[in-house]
Amino acid sequence: MSSTAGQVIKCRAAVAWEAGKPLVIEEVEVAPPQANEVRIKILFNALCHSDVYFWEAKGQTPLFPRIFGHEAGGLVESVGEGVTELKPGDHVLPCFTGECGDCRHCNSEESNLCETLRFNTDRGVMLNDGKTRFSKNGQPIYHFVGTSTFSEYTVVHVGCVAKINPAAPLDKVCVLSCGVSTGMGATLNVAKPEKGQAVAVFGLGTVGLAACEGARMAGAGRIIGVDLNPDRFNEAKKFGVTDFVNPKDHDKPVQEVIAEMTDGGVDRAVECTGSFQAMIQAFECVHDGWGVAVLVGVPGNNDAFKTHPMNFLNERTLKGTAFGNYKPRTDIPTQVEKYMKKELEVEKFITHSVPFSEINKAFDYMLKGESIRCIIRMDA
Amino acid sequence: MSSTAGQVIKCRAAVAWEAGKPLVIEEVEVAPPQANEVRIKILFNALCHSDVYFWEAKGQTPLFPRIFGHEAGGLVESVGEGVTELKPGDHVLPCFTGECGDCRHCNSEESNLCETLRFNTDRGVMLNDGKTRFSKNGQPIYHFVGTSTFSEYTVVHVGCVAKINPAAPLDKVCVLSCGVSTGMGATLNVAKPEKGQAVAVFGLGTVGLAACEGARMAGAGRIIGVDLNPDRFNEAKKFGVTDFVNPKDHDKPVQEVIAEMTDGGVDRAVECTGSFQAMIQAFECVHDGWGVAVLVGVPGNNDAFKTHPMNFLNERTLKGTAFGNYKPRTDIPTQVEKYMKKELEVEKFITHSVPFSEINKAFDYMLKGESIRCIIRMDA
Ligand SMILES: NC(=O)c1ccc[n+]([C@@H]2O[C@H](COP(=O)([O-])OP(=O)(O)OC[C@H]3O[C@@H](n4cnc5c(N)ncnc54)[C@H](O)[C@@H]3O)[C@@H](O)[C@H]2O)c1
Ligand SMILES: NC(=O)c1ccc[n+]([C@@H]2O[C@H](COP(=O)([O-])OP(=O)(O)OC[C@H]3O[C@@H](n4cnc5c(N)ncnc54)[C@H](O)[C@@H]3O)[C@@H](O)[C@H]2O)c1
Ligand SMILES: [Zn+2]
Ligand SMILES: [Zn+2]
Ligand SMILES: [Zn+2]
Ligand SMILES: [Zn+2]
Repeated sequence: MSSTAGQVIKCRAAVAWEAGKPLVIEEVEVAPPQANEVRIKILFNALCHSDVYFWEAKGQTPLFPRIFGHEAGGLVESVGEGVTELKPGDHVLPCFTGECGDCRHCNSEESNLCETLRFNTDRGVMLNDGKTRFSKNGQPIYHFVGTSTFSEYTVVHVGCVAKINPAAPLDKVCVLSCGVSTGMGATLNVAKPEKGQAVAVFGLGTVGLAACEGARMAGAGRIIGVDLNPDRFNEAKKFGVTDFVNPKDHDKPVQEVIAEMTDGGVDRAVECTGSFQAMIQAFECVHDGWGVAVLVGVPGNNDAFKTHPMNFLNERTLKGTAFGNYKPRTDIPTQVEKYMKKELEVEKFITHSVPFSEINKAFDYMLKGESIRCIIRMDA
Repeated sequence: MSSTAGQVIKCRAAVAWEAGKPLVIEEVEVAPPQANEVRIKILFNALCHSDVYFWEAKGQTPLFPRIFGHEAGGLVESVGEGVTELKPGDHVLPCFTGECGDCRHCNSEESNLCETLRFNTDRGVMLNDGKTRFSKNGQPIYHFVGTSTFSEYTVVHVGCVAKINPAAPLDKVCVLSCGVSTGMGATLNVAKPEKGQAVAVFGLGTVGLAACEGARMAGAGRIIGVDLNPDRFNEAKKFGVTDFVNPKDHDKPVQEVIAEMTDGGVDRAVECTGSFQAMIQAFECVHDGWGVAVLVGVPGNNDAFKTHPMNFLNERTLKGTAFGNYKPRTDIPTQVEKYMKKELEVEKFITHSVPFSEINKAFDYMLKGESIRCIIRMDA
């Protein structure tokens, strides 16, 4: 037992007081874990675009003050009542969606949307008591997707915690707790390209580049990267991308450009942008007869997916995925093992690193499109 | 060789001179089949809603004068140059979509959208010379989906002709050349429900009832029929439908009604209405995590499929199909064999029968929602 077990911990957290305003490093109070909860000492974060969206809250439900962060790694500090599978000192990756192990979804081979613990971007409290574990001077501070890892300590439901190989470097494998696994799984578990097929990936951030990596691993014959940011192309070459399309370079819709490049359309498309226009384009650029498109980007509350129904009658398939269909507790430890066996690389996704005190820089890098993943070092 | 081979045949055809106006039985001239074409003596037709849509031409491209009809059976009268697989006297079902046997689609296990011979509702001419084979007093009359079976003789591309067992009664198995195969295939080949699963079918005409029949054959645990016409429920019981929902009976959206009936949604939904609202409902009523919806109904030119992208991120799948993914020449003879072996029933789809001279009655029955399938006897 750590000396802090059962105690309120005072520590630094980056609090978002208002939508779109720089985070403020504050001293907050973190309550002890309740039943089926775990308190985790966070060592490293990476910034994912989902944090940025909900912080901007343009087209997303605003909920403030809030502590963001969901791509992270750390050590278990203490566990609540009934937690038997984790103990202090365990190396863990908290995940934004959970796995109770017991519901219809957890028992289904197809779904990872656990009935109880699935991601919920609008909930800012813990399930156990409907309250927050964070406060400052008695004012509650909301959680984000049950992880809130932009804090030196955080409380997470045990079903959202993946216990990993303690030999794995947390400053690297933290990116497997969201972006890299999401993109890779979107291709490997959902789009499932066959050897030699053409795959288009919309958005070449971490999620999209991981989708490209998945396509490369599946033996895709051609990987077409689509992004509005031309700087992404050089990065993308490291991930097996063979062709690059910037929609801004063309007068005609990008789905037509891609259809012309590929004799009627790609076999698979994976959308990793969060733009509803790109979602429509990704669907409309797949080949009729057998094409499959997969949506990954997080849409705004008022966005709509719109297309002519004939695009479906022409035998195209549209799917979507959360977390690349991986189940956090079952599959994420395996992802980490793959990294350890050098079957998957994570270093090439990491382009920047900042101390916790400069976390707002990570937001700037992402908003300017400069970073792929920026690691946030909590000890600095 | 029949004595008419190589000659222009004069015969009766039901000509649609204008959108929505009763068909007129006219004496027309039917030119001999050209290379890779077959001239067929049509014995029986059934009326499918697709004929009615394009005749009404509300939201469909108008093309007149035109000879409709695409669900039919007959005998080969003569064959054009290069046709070796068919000979005069063969029993055949013309199909609205074709199979060249040679293209990427025909070689794909997933697609039946033959590159050359796939259905095209806007084309009114034969592929060989871009001209019609029908005329009256020198005025060309347009074809419909390459079949135009509302004529005692018609010319069809050999790739759109299924040669069937001559022992099969053409007045029954003609319904396998569109509606029954389309609905059954939509469930069995595309939605693919697992044993015990809940399936919702929107629209309980021939296509929808055949989709129900497919669900029953797949061992579905519950089959929920959805229709605006309450008369359809009694018919539907013969096809394994266990629950009936009339959206008009409810204040809330039908997708919510179905979600409540099924603890979150059905496992599979098949839309067989042609209404874009029903397409959206069919998609939104499938369970998250694993639900699959299949669109079958033919939309209007200005219809749109619209939904919130989060409905995809929650791991629902949307597909569509033409002709239930059956390949006409490969699979339709097998469908007929199944009928012969009593593995599939077609009689229960047939509720009405009219002589050719009264073909407009068949349109009335369908528009009033009275018939499931109405057979049109060409010899009368
Ligand atoms: N479904 C899930 O489980 C899940 C998990 C993680 C992230 N996400 C979402 O995935 C998306 C990508 O995340 P990320 O961290 O890689 O973000 P990122 O900002 O690093 O990358 C997004 C890329 O998309 C490009 N882009 C934006 N609009 C575009 C458009 N219309 N056409 C082409 N390219 C466009 C940007 O230039 C950028 O390079 C975000 O929407 C994020 O919220 C979803
Ligand atoms: N994709 C294909 O290959 C293919 C092939 C054949 C037919 N079709 C299409 O399938 C559809 C059905 O054909 P059919 O011959 O069975 O027609 P039908 O008219 O016999 O049956 C359609 C049924 O849908 C019901 N309906 C209409 N709007 C509805 C709504 N909003 N909600 C619930 N029910 C509704 C009607 O009351 C009717 O019972 C048509 O759109 C037809 O064009 C498609
Ligand atoms: Zn993320
Ligand atoms: Zn669960
Ligand atoms: Zn039809
Ligand atoms: Zn073909």
